[in-house]
Amino acid sequence: MYGRCFCDRGAAIQTVTSMPGYQTFLETRRQRDNAPVVLDSPVPLGELRTPTLYLNEQAFEANLARMQSDLSASGLGLRCHTKTHKCPEIARRQIAAGAVGVCCAKVGEAEVMADAGIPDILVTSPVATADAAMRAARLAGSGVRIVIDSRHGAGLLQEAAASLDVVQSVLIDLDPGMGRTGIAPGDALGLARYVLDNCPGLRFDGLQMYAGNCMHIEGWQARLGQYRETLKAGLATVAEFERAGIETPIVTGGGTGTWDMEADLGLFTDIQAGSYAFMDVEYRNIGDRSGPVFSAFEPSLFVLVTAISQPQADRITFDGGYKSMATDTVKPEFADLEGVRFYWGGDEHGIVRLDNPSAELAPGTRLSMLTPHCDPTVNLYDDLVIVRDGAAHEIWPITARGRSQ
Amino acid sequence: MYGRCFCDRGAAIQTVTSMPGYQTFLETRRQRDNAPVVLDSPVPLGELRTPTLYLNEQAFEANLARMQSDLSASGLGLRCHTKTHKCPEIARRQIAAGAVGVCCAKVGEAEVMADAGIPDILVTSPVATADAAMRAARLAGSGVRIVIDSRHGAGLLQEAAASLDVVQSVLIDLDPGMGRTGIAPGDALGLARYVLDNCPGLRFDGLQMYAGNCMHIEGWQARLGQYRETLKAGLATVAEFERAGIETPIVTGGGTGTWDMEADLGLFTDIQAGSYAFMDVEYRNIGDRSGPVFSAFEPSLFVLVTAISQPQADRITFDGGYKSMATDTVKPEFADLEGVRFYWGGDEHGIVRLDNPSAELAPGTRLSMLTPHCDPTVNLYDDLVIVRDGAAHEIWPITARGRSQ
Repeated sequence: MYGRCFCDRGAAIQTVTSMPGYQTFLETRRQRDNAPVVLDSPVPLGELRTPTLYLNEQAFEANLARMQSDLSASGLGLRCHTKTHKCPEIARRQIAAGAVGVCCAKVGEAEVMADAGIPDILVTSPVATADAAMRAARLAGSGVRIVIDSRHGAGLLQEAAASLDVVQSVLIDLDPGMGRTGIAPGDALGLARYVLDNCPGLRFDGLQMYAGNCMHIEGWQARLGQYRETLKAGLATVAEFERAGIETPIVTGGGTGTWDMEADLGLFTDIQAGSYAFMDVEYRNIGDRSGPVFSAFEPSLFVLVTAISQPQADRITFDGGYKSMATDTVKPEFADLEGVRFYWGGDEHGIVRLDNPSAELAPGTRLSMLTPHCDPTVNLYDDLVIVRDGAAHEIWPITARGRSQ
Repeated sequence: MYGRCFCDRGAAIQTVTSMPGYQTFLETRRQRDNAPVVLDSPVPLGELRTPTLYLNEQAFEANLARMQSDLSASGLGLRCHTKTHKCPEIARRQIAAGAVGVCCAKVGEAEVMADAGIPDILVTSPVATADAAMRAARLAGSGVRIVIDSRHGAGLLQEAAASLDVVQSVLIDLDPGMGRTGIAPGDALGLARYVLDNCPGLRFDGLQMYAGNCMHIEGWQARLGQYRETLKAGLATVAEFERAGIETPIVTGGGTGTWDMEADLGLFTDIQAGSYAFMDVEYRNIGDRSGPVFSAFEPSLFVLVTAISQPQADRITFDGGYKSMATDTVKPEFADLEGVRFYWGGDEHGIVRLDNPSAELAPGTRLSMLTPHCDPTVNLYDDLVIVRDGAAHEIWPITARGRSQ
């Protein structure tokens, strides 16, 4: 026990009464409710505190239905990527709509989803430390699979699985040539044989090949052309495994940018789409089969902001900046406003240059923005506000926000 | 009362048992401890879970001491900007080191700092809604000041102060020409007169002029030249107020980029520096009086990552990307590693191109990175790990993370 007051002023900086170990701290620090909060009465958009992240539930449900029905009709499974939304309630709805399971980028995300009872979780990044391997092994009983791309990683997972006496489902991650993660496709069979021969705690369940470098190629035909070339190494690998008599019940990859190409290309058993549920400016800009705007799915995710200052006549400043919208690729856009240009105004502000605005703007005006890149935008918020008919009805915790470990 | 189970699988998605109102939800959702957690035994850097944000406490304390002693010697106050760190324990240390108070970018940040007992808080952005004005008024008794830049904002604050029967300290925000927030300097006296004549609930306490557009000008002399030009409108405004017999006890502005120019320029009573405590790649790149690297303050803030995959011989991939480091301006850099180049690898990954690395890297290797832009990097983390002598000793909650409302 330990008693030290860290602040002699306010009551709210509390006295530390015990000193936990690091593992204890990690296990307890982010225990949060996963349950959606239903508000006792709807709150109109204009009365929400800003900046806030909100979901148009109707557009969201339409996106879920379209992706699921199209993939199901093609005999493809949907393994939704939770790195996009980090929200157990959304995962629950995706599973309810027919998804075969979900993907998580990191073990930390998988811990949140497993805690929430989400079934068949695939961790899509390899791990390289004993700690991460042990955490994966602890989840093996909850239906969590994980990719490997080296004997080093396989060895760590084998050791962890053996120490807990569990069997860990693993997929071999193939590098599609982008050089981020994955083993060279030609070396995959060797790694599979290593697992089968040396790792009794691991069950080899198939392959992953995620070509993130193809997802945002502008123009549907150009994207298809490059993607087809990229997947050839995956098709060759599956054929090589077949010849060797090693089954690959799961071959997973693909995403929102290639969702309507996968059935013809014929590599995957299930598709790792995430952004289709929300859509964002980045995806809309690449176009789809029907034209230069990717409109097969509707934008359902928005950041609501408020104009707070008009220092000069030709511009107006609102209360959202680097800390409320992702900055890694494209800029956000306004949902219902033309004749304006957006500029970043720093950490906390955005600036609207008024060229010939289609609506009157003044301090106090609320504006809805399409998200620039949805995944890192969602990762800035603790909560997602659910909007139906122009009013907030529920709030869903983004429980895996920040769970990048 | 309301009972609906949102998930028929796991126990962790809980049943909703009551439906709160929106205000109740807002007031309760982010109640977190502010107290630093002291670990029962130190944890070596190599055993920390990654990606993690950590502070070299010695460098941090040296930065605090240098800024404070230099400003104090010049007779200038330090009003540390908490938007950089969002951490009550850091604010407490800055006050303990001699700061006159702190700044907060938003009312939500000020609520966290006031709850933690931090005195003399200035909200540096104007508000434009009745809700935000009421929240500011509720903090008026805790020593929270706020800027105004329009009669609209003054009117909202007056109404809120009157309804709670409090007196709200306000400063007039001057636009330094960047067109983000603030009133044109020539119109400030008129706004002050409006406040003095019409707003008995407001106490006019001075001026703010934050020239964010000058902070990152490369080269100390170039920065000084442009900054001196920019501040002329502020000096003229103060003189105008003096002639009119209206006192401006506080004239606040400036930052890390201009900290050693302010005494000579003579506009401010206190300086709104934030990044000096951490330093980041963005600031190091602008240079200081002594040369092309801004080295008056030491980097104290780092993101620790782990190499997880080596798909190709000339590169290695680690576990930090858009969700663990800010992407708005410059790239992160490696703290103790030469002969490599950094590439973003997406949401969850970074890629090290190995040209002629000064240390051996393999999956499992830990790397420390200098933060690209510290403020939005900190805003991605719930906790700051405090490192002394190569080991973690404490963990400080970043309680105002995400409090941009």
